[in-house]
Amino acid sequence: MGIQIKNVHLLDSPENERTDIYITGDHISGIGKEPRGFSKDEVIDGSGRTAMPGLINCHTHAYMSLMRNYADDVPFAEWLFERITPIEDSLSSEDAYWGNMLSIMEMIRTGTTSFVDMQMFPRMCVKACADSGMRALITRGLVGEGPGDEGGIRRLREAFDEMEYGKASGANVEFALGPHAIYTCGEAYLRHVTELAREKGMKLNIHLAETEKEYRDCLEEHGCTPVEYLERLGMFKSHILLAHCVRLSDHDFELLANPNVFVVTNPASNMKLANGFAQVAKMLECGIQVALGTDSAASNNALNMFREMNLLTMTQKGAREDALVLSAEETLKIATRNGALAMGREDLGTLKTGSTADLILIDEKSPNLMPRYNMKAALAYSASGYEVSDVLIGGRIVLRDRNFITIDEEQVYYQVSQIADRYK
Amino acid sequence: MGIQIKNVHLLDSPENERTDIYITGDHISGIGKEPRGFSKDEVIDGSGRTAMPGLINCHTHAYMSLMRNYADDVPFAEWLFERITPIEDSLSSEDAYWGNMLSIMEMIRTGTTSFVDMQMFPRMCVKACADSGMRALITRGLVGEGPGDEGGIRRLREAFDEMEYGKASGANVEFALGPHAIYTCGEAYLRHVTELAREKGMKLNIHLAETEKEYRDCLEEHGCTPVEYLERLGMFKSHILLAHCVRLSDHDFELLANPNVFVVTNPASNMKLANGFAQVAKMLECGIQVALGTDSAASNNALNMFREMNLLTMTQKGAREDALVLSAEETLKIATRNGALAMGREDLGTLKTGSTADLILIDEKSPNLMPRYNMKAALAYSASGYEVSDVLIGGRIVLRDRNFITIDEEQVYYQVSQIADRYK
Repeated sequence: MGIQIKNVHLLDSPENERTDIYITGDHISGIGKEPRGFSKDEVIDGSGRTAMPGLINCHTHAYMSLMRNYADDVPFAEWLFERITPIEDSLSSEDAYWGNMLSIMEMIRTGTTSFVDMQMFPRMCVKACADSGMRALITRGLVGEGPGDEGGIRRLREAFDEMEYGKASGANVEFALGPHAIYTCGEAYLRHVTELAREKGMKLNIHLAETEKEYRDCLEEHGCTPVEYLERLGMFKSHILLAHCVRLSDHDFELLANPNVFVVTNPASNMKLANGFAQVAKMLECGIQVALGTDSAASNNALNMFREMNLLTMTQKGAREDALVLSAEETLKIATRNGALAMGREDLGTLKTGSTADLILIDEKSPNLMPRYNMKAALAYSASGYEVSDVLIGGRIVLRDRNFITIDEEQVYYQVSQIADRYK
Repeated sequence: MGIQIKNVHLLDSPENERTDIYITGDHISGIGKEPRGFSKDEVIDGSGRTAMPGLINCHTHAYMSLMRNYADDVPFAEWLFERITPIEDSLSSEDAYWGNMLSIMEMIRTGTTSFVDMQMFPRMCVKACADSGMRALITRGLVGEGPGDEGGIRRLREAFDEMEYGKASGANVEFALGPHAIYTCGEAYLRHVTELAREKGMKLNIHLAETEKEYRDCLEEHGCTPVEYLERLGMFKSHILLAHCVRLSDHDFELLANPNVFVVTNPASNMKLANGFAQVAKMLECGIQVALGTDSAASNNALNMFREMNLLTMTQKGAREDALVLSAEETLKIATRNGALAMGREDLGTLKTGSTADLILIDEKSPNLMPRYNMKAALAYSASGYEVSDVLIGGRIVLRDRNFITIDEEQVYYQVSQIADRYK
């Protein structure tokens, strides 16, 4: 299968330059020059469109879009324990499938081509990725005390079973180990999971230093900060994604500047749950690798990486009172290339010959993107995400002229409405 | 002319309730019940749509969308003096007309039905409002030293000439007096303008307490804060809109709690220009009337009031570290009803029989608005603005099923591109 995207602007090229992109199978086989023996099965007109790598949402919980706008403007404890958890506990696997599909729809519609997920229903996430063509790095959320704790061990076993299922599915999915947080996992359990990750060469994904309470409790219990605690447990010897990192000591900034460590910042969720602003500008100055996530739709309440990019750059400028931090260019890199590296995927987050063809087209004719001086600034500061017109994942067209190709939109709306009706 | 909007959900009604809205001429003539003698000239199907009052953008400079994304990620002084001002000085009236039209397009597309503008080209703003059907409260930006300063007096005379033109135009426009700021207007000039406003019963519109520098300079020059300074000059005896109010003393909060005073907060612009976060939650606690604005597209860089609402509620929760401040309901009220009152328009910002028919319909079928538990939360926390499907201003349909009715979209794109080409 060969796709030619004709006469398109590449985000990294000079503003007026246009070219052709050639896609063979799952990868970009040429830019500007038709590769020898190219089979032109499909042509996409790129006139009036800008091509860029798909955005990479490095932290979410996709099934939770079922709880979007269900419990807002209530205190955190009421939000989590009285409103969200009871629904979560009552969801069936099939419910979770439709929640995953709804999230994937929103992400594709707004230009996200990969996401990193912490799931209660990994199999349903695999199935939704298989059906939609979406790419994901999936982690079963792990909670437990230690090797003697049956629940914790069962969850780990399930996690490995789901990986087998996922690998056999043919979907664009990979897996990592996802101990939920330091306040939901005992030290022995964290050590056990860390050991497993090292043995099997797997990545880790954990929530860290999200709230003031977590930070203070850690100091009290372990005599060190959350970051120091993970470092002590040896977790930074594996490739690890740390979601949040809002509360950090000066020493923590030093420890996080580690080639294995990727901080995933979630500006909307941190504001909405009143945790404040992560010091992303300072992280970058310290040489820390930063990627971007939306967190779940229950605490955002959108899975729109364009909106998240804008929130990131704007809040950093505001909180630092420095207009020069987090430029449009840096912000776009965080949401694309840095996300790819956080997923361990050298082949994503860039548009060049040989890269995997995860890319999106932006409709340049939208009032908010006009006039056209600087497309990167337009995408970071002016775009809503709904200017995305076409999305390809692994060379497969999943959105074409704003229409879903792989997803039955009406069916997803119908199913999630039926589920939501139970909780009204 | 009579318009029936059938089977629509009203934002303030219970979630599942649907009804009909009847519009006769420029006002809502009935809700739920067809008024006697209603002439049904046009029917809009409101199924799957939510109706709400149009959003009111209380601070912008509409012609400046011509400079959108022209100068980002540069320091403030370079931004203003080396990049923006030279363009401004070289714009023709016709250029400004197309800049105003582009801004109006973006505002209508994202559900704004009125805006408050500080203009260098009021006549072109009037013309753009007349052609598009948009509503505006227009102020000529006034800069001057005092009654002896010819430039300042000329600008005032121009302002009054433009008002005569505007009143005769039949457009949905009103006028106020807009002294630019305390650092661009001398004390004698401010006193003169204030006196004129009182004599003629006109409203005032000014930038105030936007930057730390303005605040410190005012303390040094006048021995009081910017807010105290205006109060001393008697400006709070007229209906007045104060854009920004980021730097405030405790005493300022007391002075601003005045029925004549409307603070217009601009969260995006304050972040982007590194001025920080206005203390809006505290303003509301102090009984201050707050409305919302986008500021210009050169410092935002969008004129999308849905995005601005989201930025407002999120940054307030983040900066205050309190998830309960600026609820969805409060945020929506700020962007609608409070905006109407800031414009001095009792008849706007609400949907009831007798109100002027400035209203918008939201397409409920968008992945980011699903499932449907709480439409107000969905609009404040999940909407992008591009779910707006229909816009009516003064009973006139200006957007229908996402298509512009009064504006030739391609012509606006062509013209602003031609203008922008001169500055590349």
